[in-house]
Amino acid sequence: MMKVFEIEPINFGLSEDLQNKIDLKTKPVGSLGKLEIIAKKIGLIQDTLSPVLKHPHIIVFAGDHGITEEGVSPYPQEVTYQMVFNFLQGGAAINVFSKQNNITLKVVDAGVNFDFEKGADLINAKIAYGTKNFANQPAMTKEECSQALDKGAEIVAKIQEGGCNVVGFGEMGIGNTSAAAVLMAVYTGIPIEDCVGAGTGLDSEGVQHKIKVLKKAIEHNIISEDAIDKLALFGGFEIAMMTGAMLKAAALKMTIMVDGFIVSAALLAASKINKGVLDYCIFTHTSHEKGHQKMLNYLNVEALLDLNMRLGEGTGGAVAYPIIQSAVTFLNEMASFESAGVSNKEVE
Amino acid sequence: MMKVFEIEPINFGLSEDLQNKIDLKTKPVGSLGKLEIIAKKIGLIQDTLSPVLKHPHIIVFAGDHGITEEGVSPYPQEVTYQMVFNFLQGGAAINVFSKQNNITLKVVDAGVNFDFEKGADLINAKIAYGTKNFANQPAMTKEECSQALDKGAEIVAKIQEGGCNVVGFGEMGIGNTSAAAVLMAVYTGIPIEDCVGAGTGLDSEGVQHKIKVLKKAIEHNIISEDAIDKLALFGGFEIAMMTGAMLKAAALKMTIMVDGFIVSAALLAASKINKGVLDYCIFTHTSHEKGHQKMLNYLNVEALLDLNMRLGEGTGGAVAYPIIQSAVTFLNEMASFESAGVSNKEVE
Repeated sequence: MMKVFEIEPINFGLSEDLQNKIDLKTKPVGSLGKLEIIAKKIGLIQDTLSPVLKHPHIIVFAGDHGITEEGVSPYPQEVTYQMVFNFLQGGAAINVFSKQNNITLKVVDAGVNFDFEKGADLINAKIAYGTKNFANQPAMTKEECSQALDKGAEIVAKIQEGGCNVVGFGEMGIGNTSAAAVLMAVYTGIPIEDCVGAGTGLDSEGVQHKIKVLKKAIEHNIISEDAIDKLALFGGFEIAMMTGAMLKAAALKMTIMVDGFIVSAALLAASKINKGVLDYCIFTHTSHEKGHQKMLNYLNVEALLDLNMRLGEGTGGAVAYPIIQSAVTFLNEMASFESAGVSNKEVE
Repeated sequence: MMKVFEIEPINFGLSEDLQNKIDLKTKPVGSLGKLEIIAKKIGLIQDTLSPVLKHPHIIVFAGDHGITEEGVSPYPQEVTYQMVFNFLQGGAAINVFSKQNNITLKVVDAGVNFDFEKGADLINAKIAYGTKNFANQPAMTKEECSQALDKGAEIVAKIQEGGCNVVGFGEMGIGNTSAAAVLMAVYTGIPIEDCVGAGTGLDSEGVQHKIKVLKKAIEHNIISEDAIDKLALFGGFEIAMMTGAMLKAAALKMTIMVDGFIVSAALLAASKINKGVLDYCIFTHTSHEKGHQKMLNYLNVEALLDLNMRLGEGTGGAVAYPIIQSAVTFLNEMASFESAGVSNKEVE
């Protein structure tokens, strides 16, 4: 499994040439702001002055969570499989945004508590029918966690073989803000109170209960220093599978679109396994789920958008994708001062 | 000319039905954040539960400014016409972003100090070869200002006749952050120091000089209470033409995309002529030109994006357009809890 973790560091050799190319475009220096930063980043990832985004994909991983037994979500667990049906029928937010922006959507059963029909337009990677309740026992075995990491890597590798070089991740799993909050707490040391939010819509009493449940779960477990052990202890199958997928995407030099709270928790796990993964990431949206901004601060990164969204499914990535395209497009298609015959500031 | 100013107030009758339609989509209530607000707004503008964005246009108005004689910009005045050539050749940022997002781009000579060849792919609406230097005399006569307002209205009316119902505005004019800053100061009462920024890239000494020039210009003029008089005194032809275009767009119930600092100054003028125009506006991007955030605060509005951009040309609108489309798309295409067979929160 070690092959998953080999990530080549970014070659910064082109950095100055990319910056020059950006600065000679017909616009005041720096005036395209975050688009300039993204253009440069993707140029570095692809090690070229003329990067291209090919066959964008968003992969939505779905999984169930034993922790829902503790009443940490206002929605019943069945909503996970019902939403998977909704994805397959094209009715969810991630479907309409992906379709709008010509992004291929793949849906993965990472561990949903439901038997989907064979032949459904679904990638079957089920590890189990949901995780165990981590209030009482580890969410998954180390073997299951390792399987999930491998499976995620395998799915991304297949998509990359098809010609894709930019991939976003999304998730569905009732209860997964609880798993993500605990992972955040144990990976960063930030108190659990600051990691827990309203999820799909808990009231303040519900949030207090969620904090109490998660705090106890952390206290009742012996937590090792090993990043993968922590993932097995508190993660979800969809989260672990995303972690493996991200590590593989970075190993394959793909541009990774990191969406909201759960996806960022998966990335946090990935970065603790191999911090090289971070060089390949674009953070698309700051979720209004409470812990997300703090998680981004911990990673010392800034997201592209803040649209007040907190839906998950990879919707932040799907909505942000045209702006990432804009970054690549201006780098490739805008005229330079010289080619356009426009006087530059320095000329006067 | 009064016909320009007749704007029908929004009918809020559909407000509740739109909110219901949004709330029954398969997602936690409110979880699409700003997209929900925009979807509702466009539904109200079009007075329908199923709004459609048709034939989006961005109109870039170009004009020169006499105030450049005072050394308020690091770029020479010739850059205005050179950039118009760049627009016509497809090499500017607004070209590549419009093309990417299937937005029709129109370029208008509102008052550039240059004779373009007849037959160029340019709307000729030249009022004069640039404004007068408002440090010494009014930028334009009242008659010129009235012509500019009418011409802007006429251009928008023609585009709307062609089937367009969503329009963004952009501008090009060396010196126009000075005109916009003074308009902001005289319309809002905010001190000129807080309205002036670096424009295309002044250093701090340059900014201090710009403030001094503009302060003197305000002090040396007798400023009437009339909104159009103020526009004539300090505006630019491209600004006044945008003002007329916005008023007409609102009168025609079009959705208006308001971009950065100069475009917002034109809207500020429009709102002082008829505040009904504001109901038709979506603010696409908070410019990093210093005064813009304060101007948005004054108008009590929040922009969709903050990408650290300060380029003008309507680029904020062009880049934001896919997100506005996402808002309309989710409203029309997402499944409801009922149609998708997903359990809603209230069910449990």
